[in-house]
Amino acid sequence: MPLRPFAALPQDSVGIVIPQQIDFPEPVLLSSGRALPVRIVYETYGTLNAARNNAVLICHALSGHHHAAGYHSASDDKPGWWDTYIGPGKPIDTNRFFVVSLNNIGGCNGSTGPASINPETGKAWGPDFPKLRVRDWVKTQAMLMDALGIGVWAAVIGGSLGGMQAMRWCVDYPDRLRHCVAIASAMKLSAQNIAFNEIARQAITSDPDFHDGRYLDHNTSPRKGLAIARMVGHVTYLSSDAMGQKFGRDLRSGTFEPGNDAKVEFQVGSYLRYQGESFSDRFDANTYLLMTQALDYFDLAREFNDNPASAFAKTSSRFMVISFTTDWRFSPERSREIANALIRAGKSVSYAEIDSEYGHDAFLIPIERYQKVLSAYMRSIDIGA
Amino acid sequence: MPLRPFAALPQDSVGIVIPQQIDFPEPVLLSSGRALPVRIVYETYGTLNAARNNAVLICHALSGHHHAAGYHSASDDKPGWWDTYIGPGKPIDTNRFFVVSLNNIGGCNGSTGPASINPETGKAWGPDFPKLRVRDWVKTQAMLMDALGIGVWAAVIGGSLGGMQAMRWCVDYPDRLRHCVAIASAMKLSAQNIAFNEIARQAITSDPDFHDGRYLDHNTSPRKGLAIARMVGHVTYLSSDAMGQKFGRDLRSGTFEPGNDAKVEFQVGSYLRYQGESFSDRFDANTYLLMTQALDYFDLAREFNDNPASAFAKTSSRFMVISFTTDWRFSPERSREIANALIRAGKSVSYAEIDSEYGHDAFLIPIERYQKVLSAYMRSIDIGA
Repeated sequence: MPLRPFAALPQDSVGIVIPQQIDFPEPVLLSSGRALPVRIVYETYGTLNAARNNAVLICHALSGHHHAAGYHSASDDKPGWWDTYIGPGKPIDTNRFFVVSLNNIGGCNGSTGPASINPETGKAWGPDFPKLRVRDWVKTQAMLMDALGIGVWAAVIGGSLGGMQAMRWCVDYPDRLRHCVAIASAMKLSAQNIAFNEIARQAITSDPDFHDGRYLDHNTSPRKGLAIARMVGHVTYLSSDAMGQKFGRDLRSGTFEPGNDAKVEFQVGSYLRYQGESFSDRFDANTYLLMTQALDYFDLAREFNDNPASAFAKTSSRFMVISFTTDWRFSPERSREIANALIRAGKSVSYAEIDSEYGHDAFLIPIERYQKVLSAYMRSIDIGA
Repeated sequence: MPLRPFAALPQDSVGIVIPQQIDFPEPVLLSSGRALPVRIVYETYGTLNAARNNAVLICHALSGHHHAAGYHSASDDKPGWWDTYIGPGKPIDTNRFFVVSLNNIGGCNGSTGPASINPETGKAWGPDFPKLRVRDWVKTQAMLMDALGIGVWAAVIGGSLGGMQAMRWCVDYPDRLRHCVAIASAMKLSAQNIAFNEIARQAITSDPDFHDGRYLDHNTSPRKGLAIARMVGHVTYLSSDAMGQKFGRDLRSGTFEPGNDAKVEFQVGSYLRYQGESFSDRFDANTYLLMTQALDYFDLAREFNDNPASAFAKTSSRFMVISFTTDWRFSPERSREIANALIRAGKSVSYAEIDSEYGHDAFLIPIERYQKVLSAYMRSIDIGA
């Protein structure tokens, strides 16, 4: 890989970032009733101002992590997962905001998760890792916030599962954030969404290399099952039109000519397999199970007699809700439910439905109108400067 | 299972039916260039009239077979897969029509398929079974037609992959059918459809019990992979709304109460697993691979410079095209492409888009308007009586 001189990093990049970590002195009591010793790995971009009122929290989605922006080294060939939206002059402008991005507990990028060592056994937690709810992530994010000396977030922002965390913040810590930005999210998953997650979990747990979740003890991992899980995710995060435009029915090998008995391979199939395999190289299967379960369990209105407006009754932040036209996993209808609940609860909410052909993945992709809408909202956040 | 007295069969049933079989004397030359000894299992309902002009062919979809209507015994607890549409007084009225329904070659319900014995080895064909195209099914259906003494079909009818066979009939044997009914079908699969099929195939072939397709030689089968393949199919054949109405977020086990660390199980997950496992009990994995490949390869306009209208130019039948509003695997747009191509080709075509909440599976389900539309079309077919 060629070394990239520091000077060659894009000018609107936050530059080279160094992940940091914090080990909390006491185990954290989780919603499951279990206590977990917690390490959190995080990054920050920009500078906390003297008033300490310009901090923004980024909550990641299913397969995300703390590295949201910038580069880890001068030779890094790609930036963090949301680099398009975080940086100097970008929608989440690091000239104005101090941005905090972490790897959630249960993750597999450095924060305490199923691949961490269980101090009681000296082995990886594996399937013994406690079940997590979105509220556990929010609680540990609040502990990180305290450790960083931040009293109130200017904004908590997330897409998909990250948007669920942002909404949970408003309910659990109404006084500790001023703005909530929920992108391509939902107040709860649909039966169809749960079904796709169930297929992904079945693919993982029925792989013989899963070993009831103790695959690390066997020096292996359910690579094939995890790859299939990722393929299911990948296809459902894209729109049919986007896949059609990207691949059509182009062939990678084989031919349709008469007399051919070899297997025809489509480009889309080869691409999917590559995506699945490379995901298996970098992601932990138990983390995938935990994260999809937390997604399934999330239901913001459940404790409020299933009344969405009641769920938001005690929140005190302002809201920005964004959806994408071709997103069928977290469709615009789901975002309108959030916006409508906020309106019924008498809260301040802006809602934008962005034209996009990219399905659910749109929230990660540079789209001009989305950038403008998010920029405008972020500029409206008062930090007294 | 309680015995059901013959008299208790529904009055509009074709009654007890006995599958028949035919072994063709010579191997059949397939589009792949290979020759295959062929047995076909089929059923017939109703009576061939003296003019021999009332015969209707039913083409089955991915997981279908010859048993489309009636019961196999008085104790049979459910009828054939399209019993709602075939029978005395039903849309495909056996008082008027002589209905032929077969298991396609490559299948696993009695016709020659991967689980049949390869005469050259004395073992199951398994992965050595020739690759199939939709045209191979149509060719063998025409051979069955000859054997039954039928010169021209009154109609060839199919849903989904069955609709592709019906359209292929019009292209390959334009003078041998008078009507073509293509339901919830398409002139070719989309990249998204191919992607879902690819996931299903990956699930099957990465199951260690697949043994490169020679699982029967190992007295096993890739049950888990096939179950996952079926789950993918099942979720994508249903609409999101239908799944929401059927299951919502109801739990089968576990609880959302705080302090619970057990796995929460949703009804939809448990249902899917059951569907997957029971499919694995009755279906052959190599057949699933073959059928999904034939689906992927199908592209009626390919040999006609990708011009859909040209594909139909030499056809001489009349057409009925039907789609369902919430079908997202074979959306109404795909059926409109068929209808528009037929219009451009100057052919006679009726098109109906049926309101339904059941997704792609709607074509198998009793829906009043669909029944009326299909009945009206079938009544319009002249059999001179």
